[in-house]
Amino acid sequence: MIKPFDDAYFMRQALKEAQIAYEKDEVPVGAVVVANDQIIARGHNLTEQLNDVTAHAEMLSITAAAEHLGGKYLKDCALYVTLEPCVMCAGALNWSQISKLVYGARDEKRGALQYENLFHRKTAIVGGVLAEESAALVKTFFQRKR
Amino acid sequence: MIKPFDDAYFMRQALKEAQIAYEKDEVPVGAVVVANDQIIARGHNLTEQLNDVTAHAEMLSITAAAEHLGGKYLKDCALYVTLEPCVMCAGALNWSQISKLVYGARDEKRGALQYENLFHRKTAIVGGVLAEESAALVKTFFQRKR
Repeated sequence: MIKPFDDAYFMRQALKEAQIAYEKDEVPVGAVVVANDQIIARGHNLTEQLNDVTAHAEMLSITAAAEHLGGKYLKDCALYVTLEPCVMCAGALNWSQISKLVYGARDEKRGALQYENLFHRKTAIVGGVLAEESAALVKTFFQRKR
Repeated sequence: MIKPFDDAYFMRQALKEAQIAYEKDEVPVGAVVVANDQIIARGHNLTEQLNDVTAHAEMLSITAAAEHLGGKYLKDCALYVTLEPCVMCAGALNWSQISKLVYGARDEKRGALQYENLFHRKTAIVGGVLAEESAALVKTFFQRKR
């Protein structure tokens, strides 16, 4: 059976958000939140534009998804993000009790997976979806910056 | 020499914010950000009112301080918060490169200090300032909830 809405499909949507961040000269990370195979929130990194270290793609998406749902918990949702979440975003995802996290590229230096147990014990974590494209976008961004 | 603006002075201001949260039926945690002995931002927990798990006192204060300064880094600032920051807030404080963190009560269950190295290596951390009053407010809140 062909599954139209698989992890790669939603990660491609997150990559579109990352591309928008890139075009705004922001570190290119994008995210979407999915419930019942529908995207209920989208976000991309806006730390420069908003002048705010907390304005990561995940944070903006979590806030937007809760707004959409009318409730602060994301228990039946999945978050797709192009880069492994940092400690801040892992903490926010923990509070949200999100069901599933899918990330693209690893972030060895800043990623939260280097620590144990920062994510919620009920959050299923899938990594490496469209990892190369996600990583390439970030790499190109920083190469252009130098 | 009498120092008018010591850690207890600013923590009392953070406690005032926590009291406002309490009156709004929010988990009573408050914070202020200080630069050059002046309070440049205030915040209290608004997770219920904003329907948003990310709306912790520290997060709102970090965002407000950056807005005030016109720059996203808080290198020459101190954050005073009535309760030990959680993982999310520790991550945000790390990104902000804040100089100093002063907290009131420990949060054994949710606090970030149970993990190693979540805070920025340049952030000086002082704990236990007005700890009893800070803890008592949270305790009373949860007792009333039951």
